[in-house]
Order: sequence, then structure tokens, then C-alpha cells
Amino acid sequence: MRWWGWGEAEPMLDAHQLALLSQRVGQLQRVCPPVALSAVRLDPSRLHDTAAQALRAALPDGVICSDHEQRVRHAAGRSYLDLLRLRAGEPLGAPDAVLFPQSAAEIQSVLEACHEHSVAVVPFGGGTSVVGGVEPLRGAHHAVISLDLSRVASIVRVDRTSLIVTAGAGLRVAVLERHLATRGLTLGHFPQSFEHVSLGGCAATRSAGQSSTGYGRFTDMVQGLSVLTPTGPLTLQAFPATAAGPDLRELVLGSEGVLGVISQLDLRVRQRPEHELYEGFFFKDFTGGCEALRELAQTQHAPTLARLSDRSETAISMAMAGSGSASQRLGRRYLALRGYSGGCLAILGFSGSQRTVQRQRRGALEIIRRNGGLAVGRSPGKAWVSQRFSAPYLRDELMTHGVMVETLETATRWSNLLRLHRDVGERIDRELRVMGTPAIVMCHVSHIYETGASLYFTVLARQQPGAEIEQWQSVKRAASEVILAAGGTITHHHAVGSDHSRWLASEIGPEGMRALAALKDAFDPDGIMNPGKLLA
Amino acid sequence: MRWWGWGEAEPMLDAHQLALLSQRVGQLQRVCPPVALSAVRLDPSRLHDTAAQALRAALPDGVICSDHEQRVRHAAGRSYLDLLRLRAGEPLGAPDAVLFPQSAAEIQSVLEACHEHSVAVVPFGGGTSVVGGVEPLRGAHHAVISLDLSRVASIVRVDRTSLIVTAGAGLRVAVLERHLATRGLTLGHFPQSFEHVSLGGCAATRSAGQSSTGYGRFTDMVQGLSVLTPTGPLTLQAFPATAAGPDLRELVLGSEGVLGVISQLDLRVRQRPEHELYEGFFFKDFTGGCEALRELAQTQHAPTLARLSDRSETAISMAMAGSGSASQRLGRRYLALRGYSGGCLAILGFSGSQRTVQRQRRGALEIIRRNGGLAVGRSPGKAWVSQRFSAPYLRDELMTHGVMVETLETATRWSNLLRLHRDVGERIDRELRVMGTPAIVMCHVSHIYETGASLYFTVLARQQPGAEIEQWQSVKRAASEVILAAGGTITHHHAVGSDHSRWLASEIGPEGMRALAALKDAFDPDGIMNPGKLLA
Repeated sequence: MRWWGWGEAEPMLDAHQLALLSQRVGQLQRVCPPVALSAVRLDPSRLHDTAAQALRAALPDGVICSDHEQRVRHAAGRSYLDLLRLRAGEPLGAPDAVLFPQSAAEIQSVLEACHEHSVAVVPFGGGTSVVGGVEPLRGAHHAVISLDLSRVASIVRVDRTSLIVTAGAGLRVAVLERHLATRGLTLGHFPQSFEHVSLGGCAATRSAGQSSTGYGRFTDMVQGLSVLTPTGPLTLQAFPATAAGPDLRELVLGSEGVLGVISQLDLRVRQRPEHELYEGFFFKDFTGGCEALRELAQTQHAPTLARLSDRSETAISMAMAGSGSASQRLGRRYLALRGYSGGCLAILGFSGSQRTVQRQRRGALEIIRRNGGLAVGRSPGKAWVSQRFSAPYLRDELMTHGVMVETLETATRWSNLLRLHRDVGERIDRELRVMGTPAIVMCHVSHIYETGASLYFTVLARQQPGAEIEQWQSVKRAASEVILAAGGTITHHHAVGSDHSRWLASEIGPEGMRALAALKDAFDPDGIMNPGKLLA
Repeated sequence: MRWWGWGEAEPMLDAHQLALLSQRVGQLQRVCPPVALSAVRLDPSRLHDTAAQALRAALPDGVICSDHEQRVRHAAGRSYLDLLRLRAGEPLGAPDAVLFPQSAAEIQSVLEACHEHSVAVVPFGGGTSVVGGVEPLRGAHHAVISLDLSRVASIVRVDRTSLIVTAGAGLRVAVLERHLATRGLTLGHFPQSFEHVSLGGCAATRSAGQSSTGYGRFTDMVQGLSVLTPTGPLTLQAFPATAAGPDLRELVLGSEGVLGVISQLDLRVRQRPEHELYEGFFFKDFTGGCEALRELAQTQHAPTLARLSDRSETAISMAMAGSGSASQRLGRRYLALRGYSGGCLAILGFSGSQRTVQRQRRGALEIIRRNGGLAVGRSPGKAWVSQRFSAPYLRDELMTHGVMVETLETATRWSNLLRLHRDVGERIDRELRVMGTPAIVMCHVSHIYETGASLYFTVLARQQPGAEIEQWQSVKRAASEVILAAGGTITHHHAVGSDHSRWLASEIGPEGMRALAALKDAFDPDGIMNPGKLLA
């Protein structure tokens, strides 16, 4: 991973696309290349000698770093604001040291040393948080360490009979997926951060992958887990189901490192599907598309993947795809003739045996047609698959062109989905228009459930020079207030971190906050675990 | 509901069946008719006047009872030991008063009054707990009330678009199901206690119905909820999914009244299936049947209902069904000829459109045949459906004949299922053989998941005269120890109550217990809520 962004990649934007963007958001210019790594300004490490000695003693086989590069690499997650700050060489702060434990025992020893010497601990998986989840905040403590779990990453056991794999929490999802593929298995978890994200990170943040409609959210995959807290380890066995009191797994899932460090997970895996088919469908409007998705979800005909772009996202995607080729012109003409101009594109993914895929597709097609949808073939599906993990690379490039580019997401029941979509979209649009930086606001539904669905907004605008951070903060604040007022959850799969924490109480109320505070006190009485996140 | 048992019913056991039982467990005799209601011994109500006045003030529109019948009716749940004690006229105790609040506001006022006057509160739904969940224990308080929720039972809202119904927690599952049926909907929750159990009870105990394979456990149905705690109300909105921190719904689900009173639920419902088909299949042994169920669950071919009886349960069921009719003799002969004598009966239920049912059935049949199973037609399915809620009625009758009859259940991963089945079965058998009361120990798998399944044991033996209670307690203790040692959960769907609480710590460990204690302290600092349950 690039220290200032996502990863090395070829430039993705051509002149046509840049011109198109300029047309929508105003003239772009290359304003913001990242500074050199050496130019990133960090305060000196504050870790005092006694604490450093204790940490070294706790980690006899592990590694402790406090060099500039490692501190920078653990200084921030990957939100737009994180990247703005990193590229400017001015992160909010950096950990005073980065520790790489190699076992649960080492993690527990580190927690004890940190507890004793009043050092804050930020668990660090893939570092892909987009909500400030790995901000190196010290809280009330004199120093903060980043606890990098990349070496707690072994595959402990594959129970092929029960389809449960047990693995270290630092293991990358992509690495596990590759390992499982060689055994004919799959986890089926494909968030956009797939290439970098860790298992523990997915558990701590209630991650949802692109194929969550078929494979479930990450929380549905977790059968058992171990979390190491400052007061001791909590291990929950992998039962398929139990009625032995409240589900403590669900307490750890989404705890974002504020209770302890998730060290190991028992995960449900599946047989790898023989076939996958991704296909495009067009709807005349967002309402019709949502109705079709709802029916798919409620009649148990949901495909493995289902996403529906609104008019704005569909129009921008088609425009960005270029109008050059004859087949693209033809495609557009076909849509216009059928009355689908200005419509909404859906991508559905089916998987399983050849027979299952065909059956799923037939069932879906019936529902889609009944709701006015039109099958437009496999190329939109293929295009989506080829770019399913590419948005963060594109973001790096857009930022270099001075574009503000960020996403936010929510979920609500079906009966409230269109209202939420309208209210949030209009509010973001207005906020940026008033600022004088007109925006492209696009949205898609990407996770469907029987009772409702998620909405995922992408916002692009010219950066407000000199006020880049305030510009996004003001959009985020406005959008979040509308989300809560219009009956959405403050986050469907990005988690709370430090960015959403001020709105958590509005969602779960004072008694909900009391519950979380009580758990925090029980496991982390001195507040060393990931201060300022979730419960800030 | 009968005050000493389940409900009025015609006698179910004929001479042939009683003879057969006697042959297996020793000579039975009618030993234990219940005493008269007036002969039930209760201590006088201990509620002092100040507290009684405060409660009356808290419940201006509600009802407060302390008459003999209401106290007896709220004195116990419906476990074998509960019924033994009730029938003998010697319950463990009784609530000092029974309150029937009519709204959330009234419940909150009652909790405040109880908090102020140190009165313990036992939330009471349908009263069907089989683990001591409604035992009227006072804890450290001078009195205990039973908070009967049967009047907090309105259907608040049916959101047909989102398929979410909002209802009061005291509503009976059967009443809701009848209401939904008139609108073409179903909840799909059919525990054996279906006729009496309340929605709140199902939520508080993580209930699982007979069709959980198709409809999910009750926890899967709960989208949102309100729980009223002594420190205030906690309301969690019905989001289809959220990543806003730990899932607090999962804290309330399974909390068994020790944190507060669940007052309202938002539940996912479904379109009522057009068709249902229940069919019998025979396997040569339990291993083959388990393999088939596993494959059904893991290939997403699971039917709506799947249950597999072990050899013992199959043999007893067939023997009890009688050998009289020509078709029954013919059926047995057919099984013998095909090599399935002494085999295991499975019942599968399929539901949906005619086409879906046929497709599900075809898929299942392929898997069943591959695992050596044989389709034996619809009559076993019909027989099961006609008796799906009848076991508790039969239990009343068996107890009148001096039979000890009780069930216990667990769950584990597939790779451990046969071992757990063997270990628990053998241990119960040995325990009762040593006592001189040889048992019938039967088991079935009734809830299947991708990673594992439940085991549900039924135990019958002659009662040990004069030591009826100790007899079962000793079986229960032995079985529970084996369950924990052999990797099972202490309860798959019966919950913890007072009966399982001593084993909870073995399952969730000291840190798990600390988490529960912290939540208890946060919501119920004086410990008035359902003392002695879950966390005893």
C-alpha cells in the first residue's frame, strides 16, 4: 500500500474523462501531488524509556519500530481526510511506536505492559478504515502505540466437515481467499478494501462485502472468536447457534478495538461456486429498480450480488465509459429506443452450479421484467467485475487533480428507502452548491435484505483550496444529520470510528451508550484501548 | 393453560402403548394425579403495604392480583420439575402479586416503584419456560411480583412494503400468526410452545422454532425492539443492518428479563407460502442421515424443516404408532426388505410456490439418495404435522402414569455431532440404569445450520418414588457435564434460566461473565430484574 494512498496503479483517467468532470464540477487542475515521505511532519515519539523497556520485554520474539516510515504508515486510515492530510505531509499525529506481535500471548503481554505504563493501544489490521478507526489518539495516556497484527496471521485449522476455518485476525482477507481457493472453498467476503483488509478489521467493524446478499455480512460468517482485553481473554466457541444468554460475539463484532484486540476467528466458509455470472439490467427509474430488488430479496430469489445505481451514477458511469466505440453508441441508441434513456443500471451476480446459476437467473429475470427492467447483457457485469476493487486507486488520481472524492453510506427499511435517498442526495448537493463547488452526487443500493437495503453515496466536487478539510466536514455533518432525521443508520458497513462517534448516541440513545460504556469499563477500566473511537 | 400442566386434551395413550412403555422402563402405575388447586400450598404474600400502594399508583389502568389462582398460575414455568412440584401442590414459591400492565409507560412506572421499594420483578410472557426462567425468586428483595405482559399485546403496525410487523411483547405467537394469516403473511416461528408462548418470551430466550431451517431463529426475525430497564428505556430501530458499534439487539435477545422488560418488537415477516409439503425419508443409520442433512445445509438446499430421529427415537415412534393396521405392517416389511430395519426416520418440510416446493424437493432427494436415504412418502410427514405441538399434552398424561419425561438440547459443529450424540446418550442411559430406573433415551437433530446442528434428547423412565426431583436433577447434571466436556453448548434454544446458570461460566468464561455482570449493573444496579436467572 502507498503510504499516502491505496496502491501503485496506471493512470485511469483520460482527457475525455477529465474534461467531462470539469464540465460538471468546474475546471480541474493538478493541484495536489503528495509530498515526499521524508517531508511528512511528525512529532518525536513520546514513549518514555520505562514503557519502551516494558514493551520490549513483552515482545521477546516480536518487533518494535519507531522509524519515520512505520510511524507514517500507521498514522492514519484511508478516508478522504486521512489522505488529504497524509499527502500534505501533515497527519493528525502518529503512533509513538509500532509493535508487531506474533502470538496471542505476546498481544496479551503488550496489553498488560500498556495497562501498567499508561500507554494507549490502537489495534491495526489492514489500515483501511475510512472513519478514523486507526487514528493514533492518546486519550488520557502519555503515549500511543499501533499494534500491527500482520504477523498474527496463520491459518490455524480448516474443518472441512463443518466448513469452519480458524485463522489469526491479522490475516488479509485476500490471502485467506487465495488459500481457500486452492482447496475449493471460499469465504465470499469482498469489500472494496479486499486487497488490504484483515479478518480482524472486518470483524471489529461489521464489514459487508459486495456479495453480502449471497454470502452474508462478515458478522454472519463469524462462528467463534477470541478477543484479548486488558482484563483478560474472552474466547467464544464456534457453536452453530446457542441460547446461552446474550450473544457475546455480537458485542465483540463492531467493538472497533475499544474493548480489546480480536486475535483469532472461526469463520464459516463455503464450497467455491463452479460458475459465476454477472449481468446488467436497466430500469426506467430508481423506483422501479428498487421495487425489483425488494422483490428479489423478499421472495428468497436474491442473487449473490445485487446493486442498483441511481440515475446520476448510471449517467456518470456511462459518460465516463466513453462514447467512442460503435458498440457503446449502439448500446445507448438501443436504450433510448426502448425508452430507457436516463434510466438506472443494475448489476446482478449469480453463482453456483451451471444449473443453479441458470435457475437463479430465470427467477430474477421474471421479477425484473415484472418491474419494468430490461436485460442488457454481460458486458456491464464484466466491466463491473474488472473494476470492483479499483475505486480507491481512482480516488488517488482524482485527488491529484484537486477533486474532493468521498463516500458515505446508510441503510433503512424498504418503505423509507426512496425518501432517504432523496433527502440525503439533495442535502449534499445543496451544501456543495452553496459553497460554490457544485457536486456530482451519485448513489447505489448495494446490499439488500428482506426488510430493507443500504444506500451508498459517492460525492465528487472541486476541492475548496485552503479549506479542503472543512469542505468535506461540512458535507459530512449535513449528510449525517439528514440520515438520522430521515430514519437511516449512521453507518451500514463503514463503522463508527472517530468520524461517526458524535452521532452514535442519536442512534442508540442514552441507554445504548450506557451499555457500551459499561462494557468498556469492564474490559478496559483505564481506557487504553483505541481511545476516541466509537465511544468518544 | 392448565395450572398444573399444558392444556386440556383427550387421553393419548392406549393400552398397547402403555404396555410397550412398561416393557421398556418397568411396570407403570397411575401414581401421580395433581392435587386440587385449592390444596396448593403457598406462603402468604409478603408484599408490604407501602410497596403495594406504590404499585397500585404505578398501574392506574392496570390490574394487580394476589389471589390464590393467579399466584399459582405464575408460580412456575413448564419444566418437568415445575410440573412435578405443581402437581404435588408444592411449588418452589409464588409471586407476592401478579401485575398486568397495559402499556410501556405502565411497565416503566412499575419498574420505578419496584426499584424504590426493593421488589423483585419476574417478567412473565406465556409462562412456558422449561429452564426455570419465571421462577418467582426474590433475590435480596423483600417481595417479588410477576409482571404479566399479556395485556401489552397489540399489533402496532404492519409495514407490508418492508415486511416488518411491530407488536407488543406480550402478544402470543399463535395470535400473531393467525392475524398474519388473514393478510397472507407468516412469521414462521413454530416452537413446540407455539400455542402459549409470547413474542417477548421468544426474544428473551433466543427461541428457535421447528421451521428454523427455513425461517431462521427468532433472533433472525427481530429487526428492532424496545426494552424497559430500571434505569430507562432502550429502543433500537429496525434497520436491516448497521455497523454502528456492537449489535445491542443481540444483548437484549437472550437477556431473559435480567436487564429489563422487552416491551415491543419489530419482526420480519414473510409472504405466506402457497404450498407446504412434509415428507418422510429413511436412512440406514444416524450417520448417513446426518451426512445428508449436512449436505442439505451446506449446499443451500436446506428445506424449511429438517429433522432426523436417531435409531432409538425412530424405533419408539414406530412402536408407539402401533403395529395394528395392514398398511403399517406392510410399511415395516418394505423397510426390512430394502435393508432399512432399525434405521432412522427424517422428516423434511418444503414450502413456497408449487414450483419452488417441487424444485426444493428434487434437490433434496438427490442429496438424500446420494447418502443412502429412501423416500417413504407423505404419511410420516402428515403424522408429524398433526402432532407437532402435542408433546407437552402427552407429557401431562405420562406424568400421571408415574413417568419421568423431560428433554434437553445442545448444538455443536458437524464434525463433532456424532461424538456429542453418543457421549450424551450413553451418559444419560448409564445414570438412569445405575439408579435402577432404566430409560428410553431418544434424540433428534431438528435445527440445521451450515456449520453444525442441534441435538434434542428426550428421556423417559419410571419415576423414582420419593426422589422424583433428585432423579431428574442427577440426570441433568450428568448430561450437562458431558455436553460441556464434549464441545456442545449448554443450550441451543431452551435458554439458561435458573437451571443452566451454573454451567454458563464454563461456556463463556470469566470475561464473558464479567461482560454480562457489567450490563446487569448498568441497567439494573439494585438487581430487581428476574433474580437468580442467567447470572445466578
